[in-house]
Amino acid sequence: MPRTHTSSFRIEFGDCDPAQIVFYPNFFKWMDIAALHFFNACGIPSWRETKAERGIIGAPLINASAKFVSSATYPEPIEVDTSVAEIRGKSFVLRHVIRRGDTVLVEGEEIRIFAIEDPADPKRIKAVPIPEDILAQWV
Amino acid sequence: MPRTHTSSFRIEFGDCDPAQIVFYPNFFKWMDIAALHFFNACGIPSWRETKAERGIIGAPLINASAKFVSSATYPEPIEVDTSVAEIRGKSFVLRHVIRRGDTVLVEGEEIRIFAIEDPADPKRIKAVPIPEDILAQWV
Amino acid sequence: MPRTHTSSFRIEFGDCDPAQIVFYPNFFKWMDIAALHFFNACGIPSWRETKAERGIIGAPLINASAKFVSSATYPEPIEVDTSVAEIRGKSFVLRHVIRRGDTVLVEGEEIRIFAIEDPADPKRIKAVPIPEDILAQWV
Amino acid sequence: MPRTHTSSFRIEFGDCDPAQIVFYPNFFKWMDIAALHFFNACGIPSWRETKAERGIIGAPLINASAKFVSSATYPEPIEVDTSVAEIRGKSFVLRHVIRRGDTVLVEGEEIRIFAIEDPADPKRIKAVPIPEDILAQWV
Repeated sequence: MPRTHTSSFRIEFGDCDPAQIVFYPNFFKWMDIAALHFFNACGIPSWRETKAERGIIGAPLINASAKFVSSATYPEPIEVDTSVAEIRGKSFVLRHVIRRGDTVLVEGEEIRIFAIEDPADPKRIKAVPIPEDILAQWV
Repeated sequence: MPRTHTSSFRIEFGDCDPAQIVFYPNFFKWMDIAALHFFNACGIPSWRETKAERGIIGAPLINASAKFVSSATYPEPIEVDTSVAEIRGKSFVLRHVIRRGDTVLVEGEEIRIFAIEDPADPKRIKAVPIPEDILAQWV
Repeated sequence: MPRTHTSSFRIEFGDCDPAQIVFYPNFFKWMDIAALHFFNACGIPSWRETKAERGIIGAPLINASAKFVSSATYPEPIEVDTSVAEIRGKSFVLRHVIRRGDTVLVEGEEIRIFAIEDPADPKRIKAVPIPEDILAQWV
Repeated sequence: MPRTHTSSFRIEFGDCDPAQIVFYPNFFKWMDIAALHFFNACGIPSWRETKAERGIIGAPLINASAKFVSSATYPEPIEVDTSVAEIRGKSFVLRHVIRRGDTVLVEGEEIRIFAIEDPADPKRIKAVPIPEDILAQWV
């Protein structure tokens, strides 16, 4: 469970807003990318491949939250430490700590499920149990 | 306190991801815009004007969270109902309900403060008390 | 050919960068949305429906360009006037004039094709002739 | 003049649209970042510092264009080769070649100026001559 993957980013000019600091939805964008890098580090391939192999189109969010601890601006390198904090039936909690060096900027959490296209309506999605082989790596 | 402002958006193709649904950080972008529209509806002008008049550069986030209830895709019109849910000293809680018609898509919450540039470091920001004239409208 | 469709947007705080003006890729985002609104106004449904009906997954770009005439910032309402400027075999030229009232901000041009998934590689796309019924509206 | 700086990016899931390929305004976002990395490689610091030192708030666009040669999708690493192609009085042409390995994806061009805040209207900007020390590196 304590397996942690660290993703690195660089805050760019265009990531910041007229108040000179990161436009906050971008922190969620970095968490989303960090989640994918974490999945890849756990051996899960791209959603394109999981869709072809198992019908899984992605790991959409049930809940996302972030506590903004310190502001950040460009051009600063940042890192995101991602780990599975908890398993809750079909859903799981990813914890993301976004840091600039040792300074914590954001403490984030994403609750996700693995999803397939809803057979009843291809415009919608549907949760499936966490695949055994993935779960085996996390618990 | 129950004053509610409704902002309208339209989910566009480019707001959606390869899973055909809204790329989730965009929901926070809409909440951020809805917050600004709410502030404007309460008589708060643009941050450019508040900076010139009172030094306030914006209302940055302390915390943001979203519960994703239903998925959404393009081209669908959505509405965001924004209200002040709570005052907590210098911070306040904005509640955002994102709907497609009567279907709730996202239940969001933003905890914000009003901020000035940190006199000690213009790259950083600093909280100030909620201005009396604004507070008077909310409680 | 002179059929023009006008789309309306509002420049938001988060669309602007630390120089206080619109982060320029956003002008292309608005052109892309304006192109879709133009297509819809011409009777072309969403790409989801065209994919189901004719295999057409979208109208990807061959070329995009913009001349930035005046800068713009938030909170300003803008309008985009979109029309077909030229047909060139499988491709066509969309002209976008982005205005704030009577002030031209951007003169943009997109050269697009209609595309299907490449049968040889579903990760890639392939141009198809402009469908007759669409062409009939434009010439 | 042939000084070329190469910036590296990774196409992420959220950079792609429902047609499974890069949402095209993102290519301009990468060109913008590549331009800044190029400026930094030429010894130009962040716009925050140039503003404090010389009043220059950035190098806004006069014109931007892109020829889309090959489509791209996630998760693919890409590189952008940036160089000054031409000097035209106060403006200069940046050439960006976006590649996936040896495959050219986009041939882009940005015409930029160096700008200060317009003394007559701080919401607008104004071109200044290319500073001698920067020009000396480019010609």
